[in-house]
Amino acid sequence: MSWQAIGIFDSGVGGLTVLREIFKVLPQEDTIYFGDTARVPYGTKSPGTVARYAHEITSFLIKRNIKLLVVACNTASAVALNGLKRQFPIPVVGVIEPGARRAVEVSRCGRIGVIGTAGTIKSSAYSRAIKRLNPDAEVLTRACPLFVPLAEEGWTDNQVARLTAQIYLQELRDAGVDTLVLGCTHYPLLKPIIAETMGPDVTLVDSAEETARTVAEILAKKKLLRPLSEKGNHHYYVSDIPAGFIRVGNRFLGERLEDVYQVSVDDEGEEC
Amino acid sequence: MSWQAIGIFDSGVGGLTVLREIFKVLPQEDTIYFGDTARVPYGTKSPGTVARYAHEITSFLIKRNIKLLVVACNTASAVALNGLKRQFPIPVVGVIEPGARRAVEVSRCGRIGVIGTAGTIKSSAYSRAIKRLNPDAEVLTRACPLFVPLAEEGWTDNQVARLTAQIYLQELRDAGVDTLVLGCTHYPLLKPIIAETMGPDVTLVDSAEETARTVAEILAKKKLLRPLSEKGNHHYYVSDIPAGFIRVGNRFLGERLEDVYQVSVDDEGEEC
Repeated sequence: MSWQAIGIFDSGVGGLTVLREIFKVLPQEDTIYFGDTARVPYGTKSPGTVARYAHEITSFLIKRNIKLLVVACNTASAVALNGLKRQFPIPVVGVIEPGARRAVEVSRCGRIGVIGTAGTIKSSAYSRAIKRLNPDAEVLTRACPLFVPLAEEGWTDNQVARLTAQIYLQELRDAGVDTLVLGCTHYPLLKPIIAETMGPDVTLVDSAEETARTVAEILAKKKLLRPLSEKGNHHYYVSDIPAGFIRVGNRFLGERLEDVYQVSVDDEGEEC
Repeated sequence: MSWQAIGIFDSGVGGLTVLREIFKVLPQEDTIYFGDTARVPYGTKSPGTVARYAHEITSFLIKRNIKLLVVACNTASAVALNGLKRQFPIPVVGVIEPGARRAVEVSRCGRIGVIGTAGTIKSSAYSRAIKRLNPDAEVLTRACPLFVPLAEEGWTDNQVARLTAQIYLQELRDAGVDTLVLGCTHYPLLKPIIAETMGPDVTLVDSAEETARTVAEILAKKKLLRPLSEKGNHHYYVSDIPAGFIRVGNRFLGERLEDVYQVSVDDEGEEC
């Protein structure tokens, strides 16, 4: 019999850190990844535009018969998740809710830090999700715009990355947060340096890990998991020339990207 | 009588460094700037797509009755300049040719370095332009992807910027280039640190300065200059919400941005 795949999309390569965690937790599952590299970044675009892109991509993936959709993009999770849940008949998982839930679970003092792109921080999506779960939580946020280009450049363990982390994180460290949410799919690559900067008393919450865990829980509950004896196949679609995606993506995924195809999705979700 | 303005466009804020130089050389001229902030960056997009965007924006500016167009974007200069020159009946000036010409003029030994975004370096547009002017020139190039986010973050004079410049420029310095072209409109903001890193024996060529000089020459030759007794008015159009453009742009322009309007340009160059 033919098994359905897990669909996952992001504006670019960032979502591959979520895919990597899905590989770890669910090695038996087929996956289809869509990176909207022609229209990256989403963070600077209006909510209506991002919601439209998310709808187009989801239509594309649904036609490829996916059983669950992961919105592995903080901006799209913040503005498009509810719309996608209403419009499509499969489970839809974003990256914000799982990270927020985990942060509330592990924080001892309720003072939680959140870092992300300027767009994600400005949207207050994490703050709102955390406050919904624990109205007494104190949420401190900081945009870290240089972390994305550092991760894409592969500068994750040099003095530039270390100094940048110190500048961005000083205030949160001084404020005494005991939990820090990595609210951007690029940040897991900088986890060692962020951990070193924040010190051993601060728990890092990796939205990618938590999202993968949530996917596994939902598929188990719905009895949609493949047997563990299977081995998943993985396909990748991008909306612009694949060269840059493959080069940077190998580092994000931690293994070689294969089967990468370029497609266009237009307003009606038709590929052309 | 009503005077015609100079039109200028870029994918985002970077072109404001060119505009700033135009203000210095031609304070009497009216200007209209278009920043395509909804579709930035151009560097990762296919040449056909960038050429289409350039055509749409030029149509928009031509309707506002400009007398000369400056393509203040390296990617668009590389892929769209000749097409625009053919399609539109006004002088069109890019940023690559002026920088290349100046580098050939000032280089003593003919060993010229060029830095830019990954897209600009990969396009070899500067290398080709320099070789056309001096086939014996030796051109060494280096992509510096972190310089753009550093400039946008305003980190132009801290230890992170200094270390980053050292890593990117070491090879060019060791190779003994005597001239270095700043082949990206963001880089003038980092000029002091780049100069410090390269040392006093290397001449920096600022494409923004050279482009402004070329604009003045062409307008003088065509007798299209306004009298020096006039004072120019300046208008700005962007394709996405103006907040970020204004915040970062103030720093790029070196003065307060006013009269910023959001517009859309569709495939036919009609605003809507």
